[in-house]
Amino acid sequence: MTSSSAPARPAGTDLLGSSIEALDRVRAEGPLVHCLTNDVVVNFTANALLAVGAAPAMVDIPEESGIFAGVAGGLLVNLGTPHAEQRAAIEAAVSGAAGASTPWVLDPVAIGVLPVRTALAHRLRDARPTVVRGNASEVLALAGAGAGGRGVDALDEVDAAAQVATELAASSGAVVAVSGPVDLVTDGTRTARIANGDVLLTKVTGGGCALGAVMAAFAAVEDDAFVATVAAVTTYTVAAELAAERATGPGSFAVAFLDALAGVSGDDLRARARLS
Amino acid sequence: MTSSSAPARPAGTDLLGSSIEALDRVRAEGPLVHCLTNDVVVNFTANALLAVGAAPAMVDIPEESGIFAGVAGGLLVNLGTPHAEQRAAIEAAVSGAAGASTPWVLDPVAIGVLPVRTALAHRLRDARPTVVRGNASEVLALAGAGAGGRGVDALDEVDAAAQVATELAASSGAVVAVSGPVDLVTDGTRTARIANGDVLLTKVTGGGCALGAVMAAFAAVEDDAFVATVAAVTTYTVAAELAAERATGPGSFAVAFLDALAGVSGDDLRARARLS
Amino acid sequence: MTSSSAPARPAGTDLLGSSIEALDRVRAEGPLVHCLTNDVVVNFTANALLAVGAAPAMVDIPEESGIFAGVAGGLLVNLGTPHAEQRAAIEAAVSGAAGASTPWVLDPVAIGVLPVRTALAHRLRDARPTVVRGNASEVLALAGAGAGGRGVDALDEVDAAAQVATELAASSGAVVAVSGPVDLVTDGTRTARIANGDVLLTKVTGGGCALGAVMAAFAAVEDDAFVATVAAVTTYTVAAELAAERATGPGSFAVAFLDALAGVSGDDLRARARLS
Repeated sequence: MTSSSAPARPAGTDLLGSSIEALDRVRAEGPLVHCLTNDVVVNFTANALLAVGAAPAMVDIPEESGIFAGVAGGLLVNLGTPHAEQRAAIEAAVSGAAGASTPWVLDPVAIGVLPVRTALAHRLRDARPTVVRGNASEVLALAGAGAGGRGVDALDEVDAAAQVATELAASSGAVVAVSGPVDLVTDGTRTARIANGDVLLTKVTGGGCALGAVMAAFAAVEDDAFVATVAAVTTYTVAAELAAERATGPGSFAVAFLDALAGVSGDDLRARARLS
Repeated sequence: MTSSSAPARPAGTDLLGSSIEALDRVRAEGPLVHCLTNDVVVNFTANALLAVGAAPAMVDIPEESGIFAGVAGGLLVNLGTPHAEQRAAIEAAVSGAAGASTPWVLDPVAIGVLPVRTALAHRLRDARPTVVRGNASEVLALAGAGAGGRGVDALDEVDAAAQVATELAASSGAVVAVSGPVDLVTDGTRTARIANGDVLLTKVTGGGCALGAVMAAFAAVEDDAFVATVAAVTTYTVAAELAAERATGPGSFAVAFLDALAGVSGDDLRARARLS
Repeated sequence: MTSSSAPARPAGTDLLGSSIEALDRVRAEGPLVHCLTNDVVVNFTANALLAVGAAPAMVDIPEESGIFAGVAGGLLVNLGTPHAEQRAAIEAAVSGAAGASTPWVLDPVAIGVLPVRTALAHRLRDARPTVVRGNASEVLALAGAGAGGRGVDALDEVDAAAQVATELAASSGAVVAVSGPVDLVTDGTRTARIANGDVLLTKVTGGGCALGAVMAAFAAVEDDAFVATVAAVTTYTVAAELAAERATGPGSFAVAFLDALAGVSGDDLRARARLS
C-alpha cells in the first residue's frame, strides 16, 4: 500500500483523471473505514464518510480495534483527544492494519508541545503509516523540526513545510499531505499542489480531521497512495467550494458541505480542480 | 413495563390511533430519557430527543448512572463505543432501571464478531430489556444465530430475521424491533411492519441509534412496550419522509429531520403511516 | 482576572458599549479557548467558538491539560460527562490556569443529586473560578442551597436564585451567571439582567453549555469578568434571536445560530440588547 510499490504517473491531467476514477470507485465499493479519532469531530467525520460514499465505523477499544482494523478497508488514526484507552486501541489497530496490509492515515493533531500525543505520534510515524496528514506545524513537529506550538492552528506556512514534507515522505515511506490555503501532497518523489477549498472549511471543527478519514476511504480503493491522497484532497476541497456558494456562515456551510460531498461529480472535479 | 402485562390490542387502525396518543403524551409529559450511547451519535441523539419533546440526559459514569436510571422515565443502552468506564456505567444503569421498573432499550450495535460488545450484549439480553433494537444481523447475533459480521451494515435481510426476532421476543420478554427498508416490531405474539422512512436516514450517522432513544422516550409514557415501539418507529420514519422532501443531500436532510421530528403531527401519521 | 481588581462601571448603556468592544476584541484577537466539556456538546461548542471568532482546543488528558491551560487565553470546565480521566484532566487544568492567571469558567451541569460531579463542583468552586454559569437549580446546588434534582432542567426560577447568586459571587469571588428566560449576571455588587434569547435555544443540546465556552472567550480578552460575562450572554442571546427569525425548527435553528454568531454585529447588539 505504500507508493514505492506503485507505478509513477504523471501529474496534472492524468492525476485528475485518476482522481475521478478513485472517486467513482469509493462510491461503487463503499469501503469500510475504521476511525480512531477525537471526540470533537467524530460525528462530522462519520457523516463526511457517509456523504462521500464510504461506511464509517469507530471501534475504539483495544480488545476490538485490532480485529476491526484487519477487516476494514482503511484506517484513520487521529490524535486530537488521545485518552488512555484510545491510545491502547490505536496501538492495537495499527498492529491489526499492518498484519492485514490495511492502508492507514495518521493525523498528528496539535503535536509539538503536548507530550503524550507527540511521543505517540513519533512512535506511529515509525510504524509506517500509508499517509500522514497535518497542517504545516504538525508536519514539522512530526519530522522533528519546528516546535509545533499553539495547538490546532497552522502557524507555519505550507511552503515552509514543503521541503520537510518531502524529506519525511522519503524517510518514512508515507505520502505526506500538508493542509493550507494551497494543499501539498508528496510521496518524496512526486509532488502535487491543490489550490481548491474555502476559508469556511477552517471555521467548522473537523474540517481538516474529516479529510483524514476521506483519505483513508480513497486509500481503501486505490493502491497508489499518492493518487488516493490527491483524489481525496481534490474531491474534498472542490466540495467545499460548491458548499461555500450556498452558505451564509459556518453553520450553513457545514450542512451544504455534506450535501456537496454526496453530490460532487467527476465533471465538477474536471471543471474546478486547480491541481498542479 | 413488559408487554406481557399489557392488554393485547388489534394492529392496524387502532395501533395507529394508539401511536398518535403516545406521541401526544411524549410531548405533554416531556419524559426524561437517560442515554448511555456511543460517542459518534450522542449529540444527534440528544437533539432528536429534544426535537420529539423529551428531555435527554447522558449520565455515563458508574458512580452516577444507577442513581439516574432510577429517576429517569426511560433508558437507552447503545453499545457502539463501549469504553471500559461506560461498560461499568451500563451495568449500574441496568440494575438501577430494574430496581425502579424503568423501561429500557438495548441497541447491540455491530455485535457478532467484536468480542467485548457481543459478550456484553448477551449478558444484557438476559437482564430483560424492555425493547431490543437493531438491524437484521445484530438481531440474529443477539439471538445466537448468524455471525453478525461486517459491523454497522445490515447484511441480512429483515425478513430473514423476522422468525428469529419473534423467537427472541418470546424467549427474552423484550419487544424486538428490526430496522430495514420495512421495519418490523414484534413482542412474540403481535407483529407490526412499518414501511415508512427514507434512504437518506441511512446516510446520517445516528439515524438508527437515535431511534433507540426515541423508543425509550415512548416507552416512558406508554406501558404497552409494543405500542410504544411501533409509535416511535412510525413517528420517526414519517418524520424522515417529511424531511426528505425538503433535503438536497444528507447534510440538509439531518437538519430537516430534526425540524420534522419537532413538527410531525398526528395528522401526518394518519396521512402517511404505512403500518400493517 | 477577578472583577474585584477591576474598576466598577455603570450598567446599561455603558455596559452595552463595553460589550460591543469586547465582541470586537474577540474577533480581532481570536483567543485560544481550552475546553474540558461533555461528550454531548463538544462538537457544537467548538463550532460556536469558531463562529464567534475564537479558537477552540479540547485537550482533556491529565498529562497535557495543565500545560495547555497555561498557554490558553481562557478555560471552560463543564461537568456534563465527568469521566475519571477527564476529572483528573480538570484538576490539572485548573492548577495550570491558576499558575498562569488564565480566566476560567465553571459550568456545574446537573449537580445536586449526582454525587461525583457535585463533590467535584464544590471543590472547583473553592478553587476560585472566574465565572460560574448554570441554571437556577445548579447555582443553588453549588451554593449549597436547594437540592438540584431533575438533572439538566432548570426547575427553580432564575429570580429565586438571584439572592443566592449574589451571595455566591460575594463569597467565591466569581462572577455568577444564571440562565433562564431572563439571564442574570452578578459579581456580588453589580448585577445585570439580559432579556434576549429564544426558546429554541433550549431545544438544541449544548445551547447552554456552549455559552460557557463563549464566556471563556470573552474573559480571555476582557479583564473585567463581569463585563466579559455580560458581553458573552448578550452576544449569544441576540444571535439566538437573529437565528430564530430564520428557523423552522430546532435543526434549522442550530444551523442559523452558528451563522448568526459569526455575523452578529455591534449594531445588532445596539438595536436588540435588552440589558438592565
